Amino acid sequence: MRHVPPALPCWQASGPLDGTGHRLYAGSPPDRAAEGTTALPETAKPIERLATALAPHFGDRLTANSVVREQHSHGEGWRSPDATLQPELVIFAETTNEVARVLRECSTRGIAVTAFGGGTSLEGQTTPLRGGVSLDLSRMTRVIEMRPEDMTCRVEAGVTRQALNHDLRDMGLFFAVDPGGEATIGGMCATRASGTGAVRYGTIAENVSGLTVVTVDGRVLRTGGSVRKSSTGYDLTHLFIGSEGTLGIITEIQLRLHGIPESVVGATCQFETLSDAIDTAVMVMQSGLPVGRMEFLDEVQMDACIRYSKLDGLRALPSLFFEFHGTPTATREQAETVRAIVDDNRGFDFRWSASEAERLALWKARHAAYFAGTAYRPGWSCMTTDAIVPISRLTELMTGAKADIAASGLVAPILGHVGDGNFHTLILYPPEPGAYERAVALDHQIIARALALGGSASGEHGIGMAKQMFMTREHDANALDVMRAIKAALDPANLLNPGKLLPPAD
Amino acid sequence: MRHVPPALPCWQASGPLDGTGHRLYAGSPPDRAAEGTTALPETAKPIERLATALAPHFGDRLTANSVVREQHSHGEGWRSPDATLQPELVIFAETTNEVARVLRECSTRGIAVTAFGGGTSLEGQTTPLRGGVSLDLSRMTRVIEMRPEDMTCRVEAGVTRQALNHDLRDMGLFFAVDPGGEATIGGMCATRASGTGAVRYGTIAENVSGLTVVTVDGRVLRTGGSVRKSSTGYDLTHLFIGSEGTLGIITEIQLRLHGIPESVVGATCQFETLSDAIDTAVMVMQSGLPVGRMEFLDEVQMDACIRYSKLDGLRALPSLFFEFHGTPTATREQAETVRAIVDDNRGFDFRWSASEAERLALWKARHAAYFAGTAYRPGWSCMTTDAIVPISRLTELMTGAKADIAASGLVAPILGHVGDGNFHTLILYPPEPGAYERAVALDHQIIARALALGGSASGEHGIGMAKQMFMTREHDANALDVMRAIKAALDPANLLNPGKLLPPAD
Repeated sequence: MRHVPPALPCWQASGPLDGTGHRLYAGSPPDRAAEGTTALPETAKPIERLATALAPHFGDRLTANSVVREQHSHGEGWRSPDATLQPELVIFAETTNEVARVLRECSTRGIAVTAFGGGTSLEGQTTPLRGGVSLDLSRMTRVIEMRPEDMTCRVEAGVTRQALNHDLRDMGLFFAVDPGGEATIGGMCATRASGTGAVRYGTIAENVSGLTVVTVDGRVLRTGGSVRKSSTGYDLTHLFIGSEGTLGIITEIQLRLHGIPESVVGATCQFETLSDAIDTAVMVMQSGLPVGRMEFLDEVQMDACIRYSKLDGLRALPSLFFEFHGTPTATREQAETVRAIVDDNRGFDFRWSASEAERLALWKARHAAYFAGTAYRPGWSCMTTDAIVPISRLTELMTGAKADIAASGLVAPILGHVGDGNFHTLILYPPEPGAYERAVALDHQIIARALALGGSASGEHGIGMAKQMFMTREHDANALDVMRAIKAALDPANLLNPGKLLPPAD
Repeated sequence: MRHVPPALPCWQASGPLDGTGHRLYAGSPPDRAAEGTTALPETAKPIERLATALAPHFGDRLTANSVVREQHSHGEGWRSPDATLQPELVIFAETTNEVARVLRECSTRGIAVTAFGGGTSLEGQTTPLRGGVSLDLSRMTRVIEMRPEDMTCRVEAGVTRQALNHDLRDMGLFFAVDPGGEATIGGMCATRASGTGAVRYGTIAENVSGLTVVTVDGRVLRTGGSVRKSSTGYDLTHLFIGSEGTLGIITEIQLRLHGIPESVVGATCQFETLSDAIDTAVMVMQSGLPVGRMEFLDEVQMDACIRYSKLDGLRALPSLFFEFHGTPTATREQAETVRAIVDDNRGFDFRWSASEAERLALWKARHAAYFAGTAYRPGWSCMTTDAIVPISRLTELMTGAKADIAASGLVAPILGHVGDGNFHTLILYPPEPGAYERAVALDHQIIARALALGGSASGEHGIGMAKQMFMTREHDANALDVMRAIKAALDPANLLNPGKLLPPAD
């Protein structure tokens, strides 16, 4: 499960789509009058009838090209052992109305639809388990409305964090959710993503105030709005966030923005022991300091980073990386307060800087952590994991996880969004029989530890296929029944990303 | 609609229940063996059968006393013109299992159940439109678990903010949602409440990470948990928050707590014009300052406060009240930054203090605003309103609202959680024919203005009965259909607070 991905979104990895053929159905130029009228043999399958109906409109944005289908058969991370699990058709939608049209046509024909964004989800969310259509929203990249005065904007689902923050920079604003990679904002919503900034700015759930969603039968609805709060009706916004395309397809998002801080201070420090580092993080959280980011790297991860980035002045020891956001006075004061907490916990080599260049140099190890990890054992494969516990249980979880890692004989650098209690390892396993299975077993051991400590099986990667077996361990049967009742109410024929998120009922 | 309430929760207003009789059904002392076996005539109504079944267990916590039933026929604010709308039975539950049992027994008999907490909701949420049972949770006042190290605790639904903060004080923590009044935390969840602290700490939705909920058929489920974030499954926590007891009954809440700030600075300033005051608030928000509270009082509200509290040094002019939370250095810096923004917007008399006594004196007008408003026209009645817009539209909303107020011939002090764009008036109307109808018309005019400006019909009071007509204006038909589908899935026989929140389908 959760193999390491190519660095590019999957559909870009083989170059842009060029419309030079390979399309099974879209043979003629757009001609709305002809839609649905092409003669098909009576034995034509529903998917063929769908393609015939939609091809005149979508042209070469509707394709059964085998390369494109393969690209849309998985995200990053988890892959099905069954390589034949592919969409029968990939459709690139460019507007909400196009999404509605595809859903309407699929719904009437009983064809499954799986949404696809940046292709960066980690738990198999985008694999179309029942074939059908992979509906790619990555070309929906418009910023629909920008309202700096209200610190909000409305974007289409295919906009990425990087593209949006580029647009926002001149307004002194930024979008704070940073899961890493080239994820789309629609995809972040679908998987309830977060990242290093969540400790200060919250997850995607706290940074979205409204959505446009298309239901399985092609109806378009708006949830929430652009106000900062509201108490009028059921909170559909948060119901669709994290639902992984199983309840509806998110096409637009109303985002909360934040002011770019006047001053950003970076800091690093090191510890002889894991528990000193974690105790420091716990005390920083309890102090109420509005820390901007706080990341933990264990000694294995630090060793990997030092080798990868040729770092001076850092040792292969448990380390914390901080950012403080605010006014120059406030960030300096926060850095000094944290230095005192670090000292109290036997930390050392506390360095900080308000200069952007120095801050980036200080954070170089953290920024390269993922690639340093993957390069740590050349020729080995790797698997990312995700678990979360209440922060007071983090030392216990990490100590236990390190014992599990040692017993497994594998190598697994640890990295954590430690202010949230969120914990990742990158399990490295050699190219030998049984190693993959040992990696999976280690991943499951760590998640089981997190659940036993009152935690959750996924802090920010979602469920997809790869974590379904933990749903019954984390949620009680009645809660799962309510989730199933909602799924049945909104998608009675089970056409939206079927087989995902909810485990089969007994 | 939304008449002014007694200051005490309704069921306390006539003294404690003493179990001295007036119970129609609970004739014998608790005797579990006898439950359900009492002989009833075949013509007995379902509610009589229910009472007979439950009386042995609940004793005098199950009552049909007419005074208690009347107390449970309304919250504060809105009251039905039909005074016969009362529960047939009031049951005081003390545990989640008791709630489950009541729901199970009601469900099998087709009896409606309306939850009741502090009795402070404003839009008619607690009025049992179809009679049945009013299920009072106000005696569920246990703090179940206190975890200061994780800045979280778990409480029963009947715990109030005041009681909880009393318990938390020695740990240096506090619960930040403050809707005013003696609301229970379960009730705050049910109505998605917020208040003056929301600008910094969020609404109840951002301060709850998990719930225990009882479904209509008496099954108990847990949502969320004690971790700071999770991406495992549908977000049932936020689905139940704001659902006003129509999808399930919330019996326990996992809360996020905050550190009591080391320093709290209070400040006030005044302006010649409304627009200068609102522009100041907008600029403070855009500056990214983490302001703790920011409240607006218009010249009418200030006049009422000055008369009521005999204030010196304040004039009947538009005014802003601030709190800054943080370290002494940070709060002082924030106060100075805000003073500069106030100066830029022609504000004056900026006063601030870090001393608790002086801060309370500065904020005296704001703290007494509600009672000052109600006392402003002796003998008149009053009606609270609630609307919210994107903050950039607040000046336009308030200017329009003041024109509406002038045209109405009524008196209506304005008060706003201005950092959120949230706006309240207290409409005062004389005891004369037609005045109540004019007040209602004014309320509706203001809400219509908010909706036309891209706002919401309720920032924090919810929908209940009083605001149902705005649901179809704020939400599109497809969104309402999805809400109805969820209601039908979770409460197919429409027994949970029937008739509330969702307007009837066409």
